[in-house]
Amino acid sequence: VNFKVKPLHVSTGNPNVIVLNYQDARELTFHRGDRIRIKEGRNEAVAVVDTTNSEKVVPRGCVGLMDETKQCLNFCKEYVELIPEPLPSSIEFIKKKLQGKRLTFNEYYDIIEDIVKNKLTAQEIAYFISACYTNPLNINEISYLTKSVFETGDIFKLDEDKVMDKHCIGGVPGNRTTMIVVPIIAASGLYIPKTSSRAITSPAGTADTMEVLSKISFPLNEMKNIVKKTNGCLVWGGSLNLVPADDKLIEIEKPLALDVESLLLTSILAKKKSVSATHVLIDIPYGEGAKIISFRDAVHLRNMFISLAKKLDIKLKVVLTDGSQPIGNGIGPLLEARDVLYVLKRDEKRPLDLEKKSIYLAGKLLELGGKAKRNKGEKVARDILNSGKAYKKFEEIVHEQKGLIIEPDKIKLAKYSYDVKSNRTGKIISIDNKIISRLAVIVGAPKDKKSGLYLYKHKHNKVRYNEILYTIYSESKDKLNFALKKIKENNGYKIK
Amino acid sequence: VNFKVKPLHVSTGNPNVIVLNYQDARELTFHRGDRIRIKEGRNEAVAVVDTTNSEKVVPRGCVGLMDETKQCLNFCKEYVELIPEPLPSSIEFIKKKLQGKRLTFNEYYDIIEDIVKNKLTAQEIAYFISACYTNPLNINEISYLTKSVFETGDIFKLDEDKVMDKHCIGGVPGNRTTMIVVPIIAASGLYIPKTSSRAITSPAGTADTMEVLSKISFPLNEMKNIVKKTNGCLVWGGSLNLVPADDKLIEIEKPLALDVESLLLTSILAKKKSVSATHVLIDIPYGEGAKIISFRDAVHLRNMFISLAKKLDIKLKVVLTDGSQPIGNGIGPLLEARDVLYVLKRDEKRPLDLEKKSIYLAGKLLELGGKAKRNKGEKVARDILNSGKAYKKFEEIVHEQKGLIIEPDKIKLAKYSYDVKSNRTGKIISIDNKIISRLAVIVGAPKDKKSGLYLYKHKHNKVRYNEILYTIYSESKDKLNFALKKIKENNGYKIK
Repeated sequence: VNFKVKPLHVSTGNPNVIVLNYQDARELTFHRGDRIRIKEGRNEAVAVVDTTNSEKVVPRGCVGLMDETKQCLNFCKEYVELIPEPLPSSIEFIKKKLQGKRLTFNEYYDIIEDIVKNKLTAQEIAYFISACYTNPLNINEISYLTKSVFETGDIFKLDEDKVMDKHCIGGVPGNRTTMIVVPIIAASGLYIPKTSSRAITSPAGTADTMEVLSKISFPLNEMKNIVKKTNGCLVWGGSLNLVPADDKLIEIEKPLALDVESLLLTSILAKKKSVSATHVLIDIPYGEGAKIISFRDAVHLRNMFISLAKKLDIKLKVVLTDGSQPIGNGIGPLLEARDVLYVLKRDEKRPLDLEKKSIYLAGKLLELGGKAKRNKGEKVARDILNSGKAYKKFEEIVHEQKGLIIEPDKIKLAKYSYDVKSNRTGKIISIDNKIISRLAVIVGAPKDKKSGLYLYKHKHNKVRYNEILYTIYSESKDKLNFALKKIKENNGYKIK
Repeated sequence: VNFKVKPLHVSTGNPNVIVLNYQDARELTFHRGDRIRIKEGRNEAVAVVDTTNSEKVVPRGCVGLMDETKQCLNFCKEYVELIPEPLPSSIEFIKKKLQGKRLTFNEYYDIIEDIVKNKLTAQEIAYFISACYTNPLNINEISYLTKSVFETGDIFKLDEDKVMDKHCIGGVPGNRTTMIVVPIIAASGLYIPKTSSRAITSPAGTADTMEVLSKISFPLNEMKNIVKKTNGCLVWGGSLNLVPADDKLIEIEKPLALDVESLLLTSILAKKKSVSATHVLIDIPYGEGAKIISFRDAVHLRNMFISLAKKLDIKLKVVLTDGSQPIGNGIGPLLEARDVLYVLKRDEKRPLDLEKKSIYLAGKLLELGGKAKRNKGEKVARDILNSGKAYKKFEEIVHEQKGLIIEPDKIKLAKYSYDVKSNRTGKIISIDNKIISRLAVIVGAPKDKKSGLYLYKHKHNKVRYNEILYTIYSESKDKLNFALKKIKENNGYKIK
């Protein structure tokens, strides 16, 4: 049957969708959710049927194409042919997994390829995620899934024997170690093509913080030039097409906030494989208020990373670190960037906890990459930092990423601020990561780069009555006032 | 924030959706999939955010409303306010079920109510279905779910002590017993307000077949008038708003064709409760080629129905019947309607297997409703049928449903036909339900009312070489030819 093309200029996100007039659909016995092949000569694409009652949107004899479907078709003829299409075989495999069976590499590849090619609807992807959640994958299956995810995306190739990478599973505010570790590693002569993410629910991701200083979106070939020149980079992974399946899985996973272990492992190591990393350090912060609370769970996750890395031919080291309180003083993109600059410039205002953790992580990476002997990595890292080579390397990277280093002392923070003070004298027992993060988000981070928190006090510090715990900054008076209301209920600090 | 309303005239099916310009969404940190409350004075609705890059579809400062969202809002102001909205609590309950925990009545009700009110996206509903599939509900939970499904829809009330109903779980072509059972029961003085479905993948549902003779869509009050006058009706349930959640669950379940037992039980008994049925007969055909293959599975399902009915205060009887071959001679709406008329009119061309099964089912219902003593139901049913009272009752119902009885012998079948003959002499060992159904669908049923199959031979019949097994009818020569190709591969009959 031939239909006239009508672009709808609406994007539906996940599935390829075509919209038919309800009368046409009824006559052709096409139902909502059915698959259809759109054909014009040799060009073709498969889409999911939706219907409309409105002659205005899609008149009879026309087929409405959503943005994605039009792009996917890659042509713009006036008429196309519509042919009923059986359900993709990947749906059978999803069902098989939901029934508790094991899948082969080819079956995982089919599912992931169909997700990337927009052949599956959001609900079909949700069935897949449910299946992975309720019928946990064994280590072979996780490696199949990981391979499928990076093989269906672009690959950043460097043609070097050793490509270093690091990843933190997140959940701790501040904690901007990556921007210190990358220049140390790059200055040591190793390659570290680092891609990072933006914040989803937190006040800042590394990409948001780096954006204060430079551009973060580059096509693969420009990223390659930056890495060739400086040995490193600090770019936003979201602007690349490295692991397109991962973004979709995360989007569908999001509303239920399910912790699907196999998908977490896949997401992280597929990204590492997609930049051809050979040596990887994984940081698992654990403790009260972190993503992973118990030591036992942290050890389990470590073992899973190690098993999976073997299957993927990655040399991998996992460190378990203290995730029970924020790291560094600044929370929010600009405040965190200032902390990073203070550390790199060896300024006395630098937060020592951030410095210490960065040196620890860089040390492990230097050992992993053969630039330091066992247990000597921290010393080498500290030397590189103290020599000023790390700061110089950071300047180079910022320059290649078309940015400009700012003078940390000249940084202007948000217009409105408020000092949150202690209502008693005592010792700080705990600082709640989640409350600190939420406050920074309430005042505008990461969108307002200048907003956030600056912590004067950390866990175990002594504090006197009326001493400042932290200053909260916002570009909006309303947002600040709303945060202050929340602070009155709970300021995140426990003092005894 | 105030946005200008722009209707999009597109229907997305499940969730309430609003479309924002991508730039606006970014500035307001609304992400695709987030919830938003749309407000105008006291009117408000919650919708899911989608974004577009096109200024043409949704210019900046505007909010595009999909058809459903506009309807749901129930107003058409020029400007509306958009407020971030937390995820509905039902999502927490879906997650809880996915984690293998039991839910309370209130939790199921929340989920079902949110589905009916269009508050959940297709993928969120898919998570719920997966949860019910992988973590089977216990009988209390199934009763909570069933109550939630019928309580969130309209209820057909009759104010009678006894309201009879029947249901067949389907899968057997022909098998149009309902149109014979309903007039027998109504003629006995009992009430039987029967709602039926259209075919989804089969060649005919009772609604499709009844549509040959009368109207099948009525609002609740007209349905009540028909039942008050005739004691019965034969209408299409899909035109009523009795179990709106059920339709949505089925739509999302469809692509994976999952057999979720709790949802099957819920779907059937919620429909019975929605017409206030007090006495219900369930027919479970089982055998090779039926939905339920083994006796063991049929018994299990029977026991589940009995347990659930107790919780719902329904007097319920389950019969297990032979589902291993088609029942009646006609397959397809018009051919089946002709069989029904032959039986009701006591014509010698009536299919005796259809008559026998209808009398058996009607007998059980008469016993259940107190119109016959134990084991005497079949005799009472046969008497009603032989007396012509059932036919007269059927005429009344057709008349009240604004239809006209046709003379079965004057029925004109489809233009093109072909006699499928036996290629050997022997005994018929089996007839494949699925192949017979598919052939009838290929030639045009249920859309082309006149198309379908007429079977001359049933299981255990002897057949000679070149004797006609069945005639296949179609309004389209192409469709008939396509079916004949399939018949060459396998005509559905096994003869030995």
